[in-house]
Amino acid sequence: MQQLRYGAYDFAKKVFDEIRDFSRDPVIGISRQGYGPIEQKVHDYLKERAKELDLEVKIDRAGNLFLTLPGLDRTLPCYMTGSHADSVPQGGHYDGLAGVVAGLTTLYWLRQTKTQPKRDVTLVVFRMEESSWFGKAYVGSLAMTGQLVPEDLALKHRNKDQTLAEAMTEAGFDTNEILRKDCSIDLKRIAAFTELHIEQGPTLDSKKKERVGIVTGIRGNFRHKECRCIGVTAHSGAVNKEFRHDAVMAMGNLLYRMDKHWDEWLARGEDLVFTMGVFKTSSSSAIAIIPGEVSFSIDIRSLSRDTLNRFHALLEAECAVIAADRGVRFEFDRLLICEEANVDPDLSQHLVNAASKAEIPVLQIPSGAGHDSAVLGNLGVPVTMIFVANQDGSHNPHEKMKLEDFMLGTEVLFTSIVTYDDLNA
Amino acid sequence: MQQLRYGAYDFAKKVFDEIRDFSRDPVIGISRQGYGPIEQKVHDYLKERAKELDLEVKIDRAGNLFLTLPGLDRTLPCYMTGSHADSVPQGGHYDGLAGVVAGLTTLYWLRQTKTQPKRDVTLVVFRMEESSWFGKAYVGSLAMTGQLVPEDLALKHRNKDQTLAEAMTEAGFDTNEILRKDCSIDLKRIAAFTELHIEQGPTLDSKKKERVGIVTGIRGNFRHKECRCIGVTAHSGAVNKEFRHDAVMAMGNLLYRMDKHWDEWLARGEDLVFTMGVFKTSSSSAIAIIPGEVSFSIDIRSLSRDTLNRFHALLEAECAVIAADRGVRFEFDRLLICEEANVDPDLSQHLVNAASKAEIPVLQIPSGAGHDSAVLGNLGVPVTMIFVANQDGSHNPHEKMKLEDFMLGTEVLFTSIVTYDDLNA
Repeated sequence: MQQLRYGAYDFAKKVFDEIRDFSRDPVIGISRQGYGPIEQKVHDYLKERAKELDLEVKIDRAGNLFLTLPGLDRTLPCYMTGSHADSVPQGGHYDGLAGVVAGLTTLYWLRQTKTQPKRDVTLVVFRMEESSWFGKAYVGSLAMTGQLVPEDLALKHRNKDQTLAEAMTEAGFDTNEILRKDCSIDLKRIAAFTELHIEQGPTLDSKKKERVGIVTGIRGNFRHKECRCIGVTAHSGAVNKEFRHDAVMAMGNLLYRMDKHWDEWLARGEDLVFTMGVFKTSSSSAIAIIPGEVSFSIDIRSLSRDTLNRFHALLEAECAVIAADRGVRFEFDRLLICEEANVDPDLSQHLVNAASKAEIPVLQIPSGAGHDSAVLGNLGVPVTMIFVANQDGSHNPHEKMKLEDFMLGTEVLFTSIVTYDDLNA
Repeated sequence: MQQLRYGAYDFAKKVFDEIRDFSRDPVIGISRQGYGPIEQKVHDYLKERAKELDLEVKIDRAGNLFLTLPGLDRTLPCYMTGSHADSVPQGGHYDGLAGVVAGLTTLYWLRQTKTQPKRDVTLVVFRMEESSWFGKAYVGSLAMTGQLVPEDLALKHRNKDQTLAEAMTEAGFDTNEILRKDCSIDLKRIAAFTELHIEQGPTLDSKKKERVGIVTGIRGNFRHKECRCIGVTAHSGAVNKEFRHDAVMAMGNLLYRMDKHWDEWLARGEDLVFTMGVFKTSSSSAIAIIPGEVSFSIDIRSLSRDTLNRFHALLEAECAVIAADRGVRFEFDRLLICEEANVDPDLSQHLVNAASKAEIPVLQIPSGAGHDSAVLGNLGVPVTMIFVANQDGSHNPHEKMKLEDFMLGTEVLFTSIVTYDDLNA
């Protein structure tokens, strides 16, 4: 077993290193845009590895990649694992990719041990999970499950004059096919879906013993890609306070109010995070001009849909108060909703048991971030997640993960696969 | 007189229209960058008009343009008027240019009436008055008076990788000459300096009767071009509030605190305006990332240097409190100071008398904005300003000025010139 572990460790290290080599952002970190050329390179790279491991390769209409190691009884629904290969702009190497490499390493490990499980084991590599490029998350898994709408594909690139539809077309996909309302694969043919992911908060990394987590639930989110606060541009020296309609000052007041509410909501036990990740005065803003426009994004997350509804309504109410107070107005773009998701309790317990069998200590924790697995979970697929300790957060160029921790998570995944039909029998 | 007025009106309209034709920004409004090709075009255009009016033309080492109508006694110090020909990015047509056209129209009017004043009348057209391009204001008048330092010329363009020194060199000027410590003209040879300018606040335009103002004092300012609030980038869903170092939230708190202080300071009678005109999360900011960095500008203005000192110190103190509270840090770039300025009471009274003689009602008001005239005033030149009513503020593409109002201000200027030596005699 030890020797096999080392072999799998070396295999995973090589895969991470080789993909890193062609994923570097020219400025800092890693940039793999969904439906961009680097994401495609990762998919091509994985198809090469699949050939070496003698896996079946399938690609669906949205470019999601499926690599299958056939099981003994091919009539049975498969055990699926996987994640996404894209990243945020100037992000880290492991968000998404860790789950892909864990799946591939598990398939390598099964081949090395000449293990043929009872049912198919499929690694899925989803397209475009990150919302940072076009403002829409889970695009690959939503396309797979027939849940994209034309408005999603009309979203604009964060800094290019290109729609998501145009990016998909450029990448060689048919957007009419992508917008189909059926699923690209039969969801009933998925017996279990386990996604391994780096933890995107600091909890596991603060632990000595438990470096791996089994997820108990996934936060949903309410988002706006680009809202506006519109005031009146004027000379910064010549217009006194009473004549001003300063968009930055109005936003300062909004931020202050929402920050206070947030504290109060946490104090009474609600699960809530609130972020304005993008906040910009217009391109013609200048030192000597009272800012007449701010554009900003909104991201509210909670395990509870009720909390999301109420905090979003509170935000709108506070905007209305500030608009009246300060003679500014607010424009909200389309509300993007990702549902909160429950993990499958039986599958999670199976993972906990597998970890115990492999003698790997695990912590049961909620997931703050949404994931493709939530998309499948909300459609009735039994899902769960494995988290791996991670340093310096995620969605930033400093994302770090110890390969030792990664291998512990991968071994839990491996064990859950080889024991799946024993335990379910 | 009426006929001359109409002639001058038509002349001014033609000049405004012809300069507007080549000053349009491709997106909106007017863009005439100091030391850029459009500003140069205005100077070339004015030299053509000077030839037609038989004026003496001089250009100093920094590119400031001097057009002189010789007086009867050329040993006397001149009466100088003028302003600047550059604009903010996507600004209006009249900020700066109104004073230039008023001076030119006055010289045209003197020629039409075959009036040769006792002393020289000089129209000065200053280079780069606006700070929006490189973060430094009054560059032309500071260069003329030997007050620029190498740090000023090292400032970077707002969105190009170019220093002010490089822009000047590209425009054909010698930066060693521009940095000389002496004056490019003898300030003792200026008997009076009157700058006509659109009012950049709403006061005059709210009046039926007084559409022209005579300025009683000029606000100084303390500025920072680009400060930073630095927190920690992290995943917007996975990191709970207690682990966050959110730069936007920290700035929201700072804005709220300064806004409250500002209200208190106004209530106790201090003269103060405060603006963060530019406020931006970093280029890699995204919906799903807790913002780790905000860059922002600061502009504080007051008629009182003491108020400027104390409000700036208060801002630094509040930043220190927020840094400790929220685990962020603040970086301030070099403080840019423009001194507040007094106008010359005798010259102002002369202007009031001239207006009375021309039967034009005027309002005596302070100037919220700084101007090139403040640079000269601070060096002992007797200065004053004429303000003209203006709609929709300034430093924005909607800047409007009625040519009727402009002609009233120009007639005050014309009258002050032709009566200058009568009244001083």
